[in-house]
Amino acid sequence: MNDFIRMLLSHRSIRTFRDEPLTNEQIEYMVKSAQAAASSSFMQPYTIIGVKNKELKDQLAEFSGNKYVAKNGHFFVFCMDLNRHRLAAEMEGYDIQQFNTTIDSIEWFMFGLIDTAIAAQNLVTAAESMGLGICYIGGIRNNLEKVCEVLNTPDRVIPLFGMCVGYPEQDPDVKPRLPMENIYHEDGYNLDEAQYKEQLEEYNKILSNYYLERTNGKRNDRWTEQVVEKLRKENRAYIKEFLEGKKIPLK
Amino acid sequence: MNDFIRMLLSHRSIRTFRDEPLTNEQIEYMVKSAQAAASSSFMQPYTIIGVKNKELKDQLAEFSGNKYVAKNGHFFVFCMDLNRHRLAAEMEGYDIQQFNTTIDSIEWFMFGLIDTAIAAQNLVTAAESMGLGICYIGGIRNNLEKVCEVLNTPDRVIPLFGMCVGYPEQDPDVKPRLPMENIYHEDGYNLDEAQYKEQLEEYNKILSNYYLERTNGKRNDRWTEQVVEKLRKENRAYIKEFLEGKKIPLK
Repeated sequence: MNDFIRMLLSHRSIRTFRDEPLTNEQIEYMVKSAQAAASSSFMQPYTIIGVKNKELKDQLAEFSGNKYVAKNGHFFVFCMDLNRHRLAAEMEGYDIQQFNTTIDSIEWFMFGLIDTAIAAQNLVTAAESMGLGICYIGGIRNNLEKVCEVLNTPDRVIPLFGMCVGYPEQDPDVKPRLPMENIYHEDGYNLDEAQYKEQLEEYNKILSNYYLERTNGKRNDRWTEQVVEKLRKENRAYIKEFLEGKKIPLK
Repeated sequence: MNDFIRMLLSHRSIRTFRDEPLTNEQIEYMVKSAQAAASSSFMQPYTIIGVKNKELKDQLAEFSGNKYVAKNGHFFVFCMDLNRHRLAAEMEGYDIQQFNTTIDSIEWFMFGLIDTAIAAQNLVTAAESMGLGICYIGGIRNNLEKVCEVLNTPDRVIPLFGMCVGYPEQDPDVKPRLPMENIYHEDGYNLDEAQYKEQLEEYNKILSNYYLERTNGKRNDRWTEQVVEKLRKENRAYIKEFLEGKKIPLK
């Protein structure tokens, strides 16, 4: 195993950080690493907004229901961005009606999501290679109207998630993942549900023990239990309408 | 700059590979690195299908209109997977009607896409750290019906993209990305369109020169021109209906 893989395998989310802002050089390395990732048809459909302003961080922390957003070395908001492509179309004198028709598709939405996430994960690797810790913040999607308002994002720019980065002030353990054979199948999907469930039972025990040991017996969640908890209520049901309002109708 | 960042910045897609299969150890390092990535609410909503079978590779190459899919050290198909969560719900005795209601949301779709892509990019980093090259294959989405058929994927499992991995048999240059200031904004989105267009003009020149130099003057695409080419026709317009058929209605 090489150092790169060792680092990847030791990832855990960091939620408390030293009160020390990142340098511009660190930010540049991270953003350029993000940009170096592959991009489908080279469309580069994302914008990364870095947040330094204290008030703005506090607002984003409130909107996302997440206090870590306010306290870190730097906060990033990763947005899928199809606005740049409208500008490109204008620059080329391309018919804007035609643009509107073509861009409004699930395919471009998938495009945007996938490429933004790929870029973000490169930023994570760059950050961790410099001894920094990170935490993805999906909570940004709790209140996208407000987030877009304070970040001045135009139509077709959708904040997908945030990311706290900074010098770790905690040292949590790595959480055990699903067994590899459950995630990785060869030459086709494994349809043997009995086997699949057995693997999940086994994993439930591992994860349960992990929590038991680390909470002095206070917590012993099974993974399947966590899944069901997450499924108890509809999640961010406003998003479809919100996307349509931002000219991202999914059709 | 450290070795990790140097490696990330030197990424380019590799499309021709030595005829040498990867070892199980290499595959294991890659998949485990993918799994080590962060996952929103720890839902781990993806399955990675590795393809070794020659016939299957040929079929996938045909469906995706991409000959690289057939010739490489290993081919991966990255699927977002909400089927595992149905099994989890069953194991917990959770009401399946309720499950169907909650899982059918754009939010879970975004979840799946983002986390699958994040995992995939970790796999890329692991591969490249072992001297391997990779190429993402979005063409998998050209014909998802057929892809799902040959891979036996159940409902709520959607192949998002493929990835060729192997020993590089070419050494292409790194393609220049959009200027950092175009991608990275601070404390809010840059709404100065004139400035934005200037940056894109500048980038057009850089990219055009890049192609001119490498093709003996045969190619000189501007980036904005590539965008418009991509926008000339609707892209994979069947996907919405396909997703609905696989129990991923976007609502």
